[in-house]
Amino acid sequence: MRVIVDAFGGDDAPLAVLQGCELALKEYDGVEITLVGDIPTMKKVASEHQIDLSQMELIQADDIFDIHTDPVEIRRSMSNSSMAVGLKELAAGNGDAFLSAGSTGALLVGATAFVKRIKGVKRAALAPIMPSATGCFMLIDGGANLDCRPEMLQQFGLMGSIYINKIMEVPSPRVGLANIGAEETKGGELQLEAYQLLKQSNINFIGNVEARDIPLGACDVVVADGFAGNMILKSVEGMGALMIKELKDMFFASTKTKIAALLLKGQLKQFKKRMDYTEYGGAPLMGIAKPVIKAHGSSNPNAFKNAIRQAKEFVQKEVIHEIIANL
Amino acid sequence: MRVIVDAFGGDDAPLAVLQGCELALKEYDGVEITLVGDIPTMKKVASEHQIDLSQMELIQADDIFDIHTDPVEIRRSMSNSSMAVGLKELAAGNGDAFLSAGSTGALLVGATAFVKRIKGVKRAALAPIMPSATGCFMLIDGGANLDCRPEMLQQFGLMGSIYINKIMEVPSPRVGLANIGAEETKGGELQLEAYQLLKQSNINFIGNVEARDIPLGACDVVVADGFAGNMILKSVEGMGALMIKELKDMFFASTKTKIAALLLKGQLKQFKKRMDYTEYGGAPLMGIAKPVIKAHGSSNPNAFKNAIRQAKEFVQKEVIHEIIANL
Repeated sequence: MRVIVDAFGGDDAPLAVLQGCELALKEYDGVEITLVGDIPTMKKVASEHQIDLSQMELIQADDIFDIHTDPVEIRRSMSNSSMAVGLKELAAGNGDAFLSAGSTGALLVGATAFVKRIKGVKRAALAPIMPSATGCFMLIDGGANLDCRPEMLQQFGLMGSIYINKIMEVPSPRVGLANIGAEETKGGELQLEAYQLLKQSNINFIGNVEARDIPLGACDVVVADGFAGNMILKSVEGMGALMIKELKDMFFASTKTKIAALLLKGQLKQFKKRMDYTEYGGAPLMGIAKPVIKAHGSSNPNAFKNAIRQAKEFVQKEVIHEIIANL
Repeated sequence: MRVIVDAFGGDDAPLAVLQGCELALKEYDGVEITLVGDIPTMKKVASEHQIDLSQMELIQADDIFDIHTDPVEIRRSMSNSSMAVGLKELAAGNGDAFLSAGSTGALLVGATAFVKRIKGVKRAALAPIMPSATGCFMLIDGGANLDCRPEMLQQFGLMGSIYINKIMEVPSPRVGLANIGAEETKGGELQLEAYQLLKQSNINFIGNVEARDIPLGACDVVVADGFAGNMILKSVEGMGALMIKELKDMFFASTKTKIAALLLKGQLKQFKKRMDYTEYGGAPLMGIAKPVIKAHGSSNPNAFKNAIRQAKEFVQKEVIHEIIANL
């Protein structure tokens, strides 16, 4: 089981990527790693930080796909970037999964162009996994497709249900449609039609869910078009960041509050772990013909390690095979 | 300055409404109140809870508009509900503002039908005011109009800017367009066209804002279509609720953590107050020809009091006059 990793994607690349890969090799049996990027730079960084690259395969790619480059450039001028080379390696069968913390837009365009979609899948979706009051949920689509048709949302529901069932081992994942109200008659044309299609699907569709109930654990898979999904994803992230900031200010207010922070140390650590979405890995690109995972841009070594575990499970639990069988 | 209040809207009506009105009369000079609802019930509840109704005008309405009734019913079978009667009183000039914690949909339909929109305003919007890291922001539209045209979003930006300038006394409110990225080229057709219209408007348009930056204080007015706005509003609410729940669990974990909670008492109180959106009142219906305010369904007496202060300022600071002058 070989995971191809873009060594030059993410804010702390390549250092955090290399460290994450080293951790993953130690921890996960049966995982092999191919690193794609500028080999001299990788070797230099590895030697500076005592990272052992001897068990990893290295593939040279001269360019780095910058987050600000137009995503479609990945097919043209950026086709020798670490991301494009890694995707082509995956397409050629020289690995089982691909992982990158680089530009989401480029990864979507590149994965669709080089690796292709599963036959019959209308659109690939970005599907982050996020913490909730009761565990976690998959949000599909988190921002890949701004204009969606009802059939796309139906496919998102099916693919999300299979992923959460296989990877998170939830027996019959509750699939909900993000909407402005719970009643069947709520929403615009897209939601009304998608509701009926999801209802007819062979999944555990629980109907509409209001965004308020999503972080509270309303369902295991939240289906939305990419624009609405992005609003949910980013609002939840932003509100989480605000609350963390407020908490920090609170604990640093005085000697008294610093003592309180000490007394809460164990709870705060647990809380931080529970709210850390990188514990679940990155966001899979659902609908692509082979496992492709987008790690968060700010991933640290532990986040990369978790994303490699996720890639391993994505392959071993045959998620894509199951999607093909159910389409 | 007379505020007409729907005594039978909200989860704790009429008790919380009557108590809020009593508090407002004591606190705010120059405010007069008209309560609409079933007079015998109001009198009974007031006498049971020692609430002084002698300074308030009471108007009889036989029906209560239930939150589950179809909103359009307000014009037909529910035209004798406390909400409809109150709106008709406002339209007839028997008061300066109307306040209800009842069904949002019915209030929108009723306000548009009985009070009408400002001439030239294409759609009325629900515009909640929410806390952020740096103070507060108005979200317009929070869920009234699922299908919006670019010109509607332009008007939302203008109306929001005027409200925040007049009521919150922000000199040149920063108006942002909710979008999936900061660049001018991001988003679907609606966002691309609205961006250009907002740029041409006589407001301080700062461009696109990502949902993640909204709770962190990215701007003072967030413009969105009603569906996207509702996703933002409810996600922020839900994530806030999740964090509060997690905090509570943390503080109740053991004797040690309970001591920590005691040490943090002052900070927790301040934090709660800062995160309490009812401190700013309710959500004004922007674009209606007279001030109409939707209070939160779960409003307590203090929330009703704040919404009455908000109604008073909405009238006295001539927000609607200013909107008409700038359309």
